[in-house]
Amino acid sequence: MSTREESVLARVALTWLAEPGTRSVHRMVDVLGPVDTLDLLLDGGAPQEALRESVAARSGAGDARSVAAEALGNIDRLGARIVIPGDEDWPATVEELRRLHLPDAHRRVDLETAPPLCFWVRGPWPLAEALERSVAVVGARAATSYGIHIATDLGYGLADRGWTVVSGGAFGIDAAAHRGALNANGLTVAVLACGVDRPYPMGNAALFDRIADTGLLVSEWPPGAEPLRPRFLIRNRVIAAGTRGTVLVEAAARSGATQTTRRAIGLNRPAMVVPGPVTSAMSVGAHELLREQPTARLVTGLDQVLEEVGRIGELAPVPRGPDRPTDLLDDDARAIVEAMPRRGTVDVDALAARAGLAVRTVLRKLSTLEELALVVRRADGYLLAARPGRSGPAEQPER
Amino acid sequence: MSTREESVLARVALTWLAEPGTRSVHRMVDVLGPVDTLDLLLDGGAPQEALRESVAARSGAGDARSVAAEALGNIDRLGARIVIPGDEDWPATVEELRRLHLPDAHRRVDLETAPPLCFWVRGPWPLAEALERSVAVVGARAATSYGIHIATDLGYGLADRGWTVVSGGAFGIDAAAHRGALNANGLTVAVLACGVDRPYPMGNAALFDRIADTGLLVSEWPPGAEPLRPRFLIRNRVIAAGTRGTVLVEAAARSGATQTTRRAIGLNRPAMVVPGPVTSAMSVGAHELLREQPTARLVTGLDQVLEEVGRIGELAPVPRGPDRPTDLLDDDARAIVEAMPRRGTVDVDALAARAGLAVRTVLRKLSTLEELALVVRRADGYLLAARPGRSGPAEQPER
Repeated sequence: MSTREESVLARVALTWLAEPGTRSVHRMVDVLGPVDTLDLLLDGGAPQEALRESVAARSGAGDARSVAAEALGNIDRLGARIVIPGDEDWPATVEELRRLHLPDAHRRVDLETAPPLCFWVRGPWPLAEALERSVAVVGARAATSYGIHIATDLGYGLADRGWTVVSGGAFGIDAAAHRGALNANGLTVAVLACGVDRPYPMGNAALFDRIADTGLLVSEWPPGAEPLRPRFLIRNRVIAAGTRGTVLVEAAARSGATQTTRRAIGLNRPAMVVPGPVTSAMSVGAHELLREQPTARLVTGLDQVLEEVGRIGELAPVPRGPDRPTDLLDDDARAIVEAMPRRGTVDVDALAARAGLAVRTVLRKLSTLEELALVVRRADGYLLAARPGRSGPAEQPER
Repeated sequence: MSTREESVLARVALTWLAEPGTRSVHRMVDVLGPVDTLDLLLDGGAPQEALRESVAARSGAGDARSVAAEALGNIDRLGARIVIPGDEDWPATVEELRRLHLPDAHRRVDLETAPPLCFWVRGPWPLAEALERSVAVVGARAATSYGIHIATDLGYGLADRGWTVVSGGAFGIDAAAHRGALNANGLTVAVLACGVDRPYPMGNAALFDRIADTGLLVSEWPPGAEPLRPRFLIRNRVIAAGTRGTVLVEAAARSGATQTTRRAIGLNRPAMVVPGPVTSAMSVGAHELLREQPTARLVTGLDQVLEEVGRIGELAPVPRGPDRPTDLLDDDARAIVEAMPRRGTVDVDALAARAGLAVRTVLRKLSTLEELALVVRRADGYLLAARPGRSGPAEQPER
């Protein structure tokens, strides 16, 4: 049995030798443990040729154990720490990535979606606790002011209600969600596709500093790792798996943000999509997800997001128009109100004919309507009571 | 057996005695025919007390047969005609209203949804032919410029593709859809909740004139009938039943336009909803329909509407981002491109280490990439080929 220290070193080395998510490596770690897996791989004993090639190629740039040891040697200086499976702080939900299989997957990044081997973490919160009650808010980098507004509001509202806001630290929607949470003095977690020592993009440096002060920067890659393009997609599986649900705010067609949502769907987590103007290129991906994915849920705001991720019983109120006094009326009484002239009085017989009701029915209902102050009796007949802002059928009929 | 003339008079009289859609009247007409039904009702022989009351009350304002005869006497002067079941010009699809049952119906207008007894028509087109290939475009009166833009575009596009655009002639979305169709020199039909002699609202008078010149004004009510508020909802069942599908463009919470869509759903017709900004009160009803009604379909434009109402095989193209040359590459070749530095050359060994691939794999793929002009070989290594507008991973990674 190896010590935690040996296990940490092996996991870091393995993540350096093969990109995180590689299923064959994860399966070997399951069976052999990380230390023996590392030994086997470095001895050229990987069962698949592609993996043997990859290990050999990476080893050409350095010795995996030394690279890992050096990274771990700097961990205190970086204010970072490492979390591995078995630690109290390991977020159990990411283990569900074992069972993630994306439909129509043929690209490596859609196939190699195994759980992480370790997390590098910067920030004052325990990782598992921070993710316990968390929602991912993701979307386009080239977001519109509409998307920024929505993401900021959602980030603020979720944090304000005690939820952790998880995103990827990118420009646009991601940054807006993080900022919203920070503005609410809430907890936010940026899951990075590079080392936690130099979060990408540089333009968000001040934001990353604020997140590291009060929330968490998290990465599978060791410090110094570059944000190579495929890593963003590899990282997205963690955002989907680490949270209780994912909200997509804006996405162009075929964007990485829709991939995070597809991973949430593949994990049976609530996948929520905020619609937008159909004239906006930045909502094309969002609408396409809603059209293609029967389980993707259209959400229009915080209440509906909380309904999806919250406890059963946290139901969002159904939006409805303003209450009208006539809502309380039965069909006959409503027919009478609607048959009354907008101006001037009407006698009971004419009213009965217009409403298609018996005179005695009209008389009975009129007395109710009088009590409700909806009609007024005059010497020459009945009159609709004046109501502020009331518009009659001739001006504004219900369609 | 009564003549068509007798049947027409009876149907007009019956529509005057009881609002169209009344199920008990429609059932009696089914069994007894319109002439005997009218006789029975005027003799006080309606089986339900409410109907007896209604008939007696309306009869207080005039004799149903005389009212109908007078209306029909003016029909030529109005440039109108009447169409009844059995006429070649009767649109068979409205008969499906026999089977329309709305869930949770408790209001009269949601229960009394029987087929029309007759249609008054103004305009140069045969009614059944005009509705044969038709789509309803409905929505809010207080539409935003976004909604007006979408409805105009849809009206234009549908008409341009040979579809009739059906709506209710109201301000806002309805008028925009009609106008779009007229601008395409296409066919548009306004289904009214009042007589075809004085289409409501007056503010759309010029629009109604244009529709009557080239399309159709249609109503169940005889000339002179007022647009009483419940009639708009009664009318909406005809818009839903007379068309191949209904598109909702904008709707406030609890609006009449969502009722038309619910009727389309109840008739198993395609019910399509255009989303909008979640910040817009005029899209609240649209989003609510999409959330509540699993069969309501989100559509973002003409192609998707045609896919719903058109023949099988008219599939809308799936929106996608711009094609990238790297789309054609396999995982290994893509990994190599992504591992190449944005500036300067790299040698094969370093590239193999970065990409995590064997040197021989890298060499093989590099020769393919050279052929595709994606990389350039130099004396000191390989270089990414310059592409106009290409941005590398460090500037714009795929998320």
